[in-house]
Amino acid sequence: MNNNPILVEAMRGGTRESAHRGAVAVFDADGRRVVAIGDIETPIFPRSAVKVLQAIPLVESGAADRLGLDDEELAIACASHNGEPAHVAVVDRMLAKAGLDGASLECGVHWPRVESVLRAMAAAGTTATAQHNNCSGKHAGFLCLACVLSGGGDAREYARGYVAPRHPVMRVVTEALQSATGYDLATAPRAIDGCSIPTFAIPLDKLAIAFARVGTGVGLRPGHARAAERLRRAVARYPFMVAGSERFDTTVMAALGERVFCKVGAEGVFCAALPERGLGVAIKMDDGNNARACEVAMAAVVEAFVALDDDESILLRSLSDASMRNWNRIEVGSLRATAELRAALAH
Amino acid sequence: MNNNPILVEAMRGGTRESAHRGAVAVFDADGRRVVAIGDIETPIFPRSAVKVLQAIPLVESGAADRLGLDDEELAIACASHNGEPAHVAVVDRMLAKAGLDGASLECGVHWPRVESVLRAMAAAGTTATAQHNNCSGKHAGFLCLACVLSGGGDAREYARGYVAPRHPVMRVVTEALQSATGYDLATAPRAIDGCSIPTFAIPLDKLAIAFARVGTGVGLRPGHARAAERLRRAVARYPFMVAGSERFDTTVMAALGERVFCKVGAEGVFCAALPERGLGVAIKMDDGNNARACEVAMAAVVEAFVALDDDESILLRSLSDASMRNWNRIEVGSLRATAELRAALAH
Repeated sequence: MNNNPILVEAMRGGTRESAHRGAVAVFDADGRRVVAIGDIETPIFPRSAVKVLQAIPLVESGAADRLGLDDEELAIACASHNGEPAHVAVVDRMLAKAGLDGASLECGVHWPRVESVLRAMAAAGTTATAQHNNCSGKHAGFLCLACVLSGGGDAREYARGYVAPRHPVMRVVTEALQSATGYDLATAPRAIDGCSIPTFAIPLDKLAIAFARVGTGVGLRPGHARAAERLRRAVARYPFMVAGSERFDTTVMAALGERVFCKVGAEGVFCAALPERGLGVAIKMDDGNNARACEVAMAAVVEAFVALDDDESILLRSLSDASMRNWNRIEVGSLRATAELRAALAH
Repeated sequence: MNNNPILVEAMRGGTRESAHRGAVAVFDADGRRVVAIGDIETPIFPRSAVKVLQAIPLVESGAADRLGLDDEELAIACASHNGEPAHVAVVDRMLAKAGLDGASLECGVHWPRVESVLRAMAAAGTTATAQHNNCSGKHAGFLCLACVLSGGGDAREYARGYVAPRHPVMRVVTEALQSATGYDLATAPRAIDGCSIPTFAIPLDKLAIAFARVGTGVGLRPGHARAAERLRRAVARYPFMVAGSERFDTTVMAALGERVFCKVGAEGVFCAALPERGLGVAIKMDDGNNARACEVAMAAVVEAFVALDDDESILLRSLSDASMRNWNRIEVGSLRATAELRAALAH
């Protein structure tokens, strides 16, 4: 990451106050490079940006159909959600369909991170549970998969320890990730994610190709292609489920529908499928900054590659060149894609 | 900032996941350079890191004595506090001594940013006021200064608009900043800070020299030197006032007392005086990251320059090489000063 260019800059008045470096890969499903900015070959941990790939087995295995999961539930299986009441309700509903409850979730507990959501929860006297964890939908999906893999046995017992790399659930999830990216995860750097499942370092080019495959089905096994399409459509129908209030993913997908499937991950990672264009996108900001950096870069990518009407253009520009206001609502600067990033995206 | 080195790295497992670049200046009060890492000459906005310099006129003018301000009140005049109940109470007390109340504060309103504090406040049914703004102590200091500058007139009327560059309060505050840094603020890039007062871009070397002066009195006008010493001692006595629960500044100063005066600013800026060593420190992280980046770098600077006993060494190492744990408390990596930073600090 040593020589990645500055993609996003924070301006205060007319002066650049801070800057974010990073790398961007845009590829098609056949592996053709459309854009390569910075180092797209060193493996990076994609974290939650690949949740849709990790949810493929839930659908492909038949578990989603066997348990009668609906589109809200499939959407939250791909989510890093805010832990808002609607999110918690859908997670609880999914778990109930598997005959389980929050006690089986192994993602850990954290309070919502969006200030207004946290305040509302504290004011209501609610206490954080594993269902509030931003990954609880993904984990509920793992538990639904475990329920079906258990073959009618004790699902709770079968699922125990599902976050471990060698558990049957995690093996099938990892296989789906390897299959979509075409990257050998057995030799990839491995670490533990925030929600305790393994995370594998994968180069941006492979991630971009995987998302082009998710958007087109090209290069995926037929069952995986059908599963990816169903998951994308579920998220497009219920974009609130994948993130929530005041969140980039929800805002963009609510506006653009199936034209963009985007998913942020921790530490400044962002992946997207642009199905109309047959392209996949993968971004990693060197400093790991999400809201400040990779979201601004992703907005610029969407502007560069998706045909937008006037309202959509205004929305995306408000995300790629965002006015920064202080506590008195005085405009003090902006957070924006650099000219260097926009030039590199021009095609 | 284009070629600043990586000072802090976030490790996940054995892999570097993210990295933070920045610059560090360590100087003495006579302007002798002790350490220079990266670009220390381009002006940067010091933001809240210079609050102690902006509080000098409150003391030097005699306002603090005239209004009978105590050490808690002087400490909070230098603070970016958490808006905890104790902070709000001290700000209210200061305002009352000036015959004013929260209605005169022009810093704007925001909710506390530390999760536990925000939750406690929401759970108690409290609503955010200007007193909760992290800058409210500094602004209360400005209002106390205005009260005395008004010369017995209507302080409320006199103070109105005190955040504007041309207001007498802001003129005297700006003059103190210019005097301590020796930098011509009339020609420096100027922008509006989060709390609406002007912020002037100043090079790191000038900021480091100013903090060496704050720590030693050398190079300051006698009245400013006395004021700086009194402010430093007030903060050393009440380090909770300058930040609060779970905050680096409070933790470090509670442990090290008058041996370190440190003050974080927004956008990855950190300044410190190390009076025992006669040195001043100024850090700016390129990406503007605070808790993740400039605090880790400052901990490494303190380790390099302050004589620490065993307990202090353990504390500082826990801040400069911090274990990162996930929601299940599993150790997943660390956030640490790079070998490059430690080597550059060796002397």
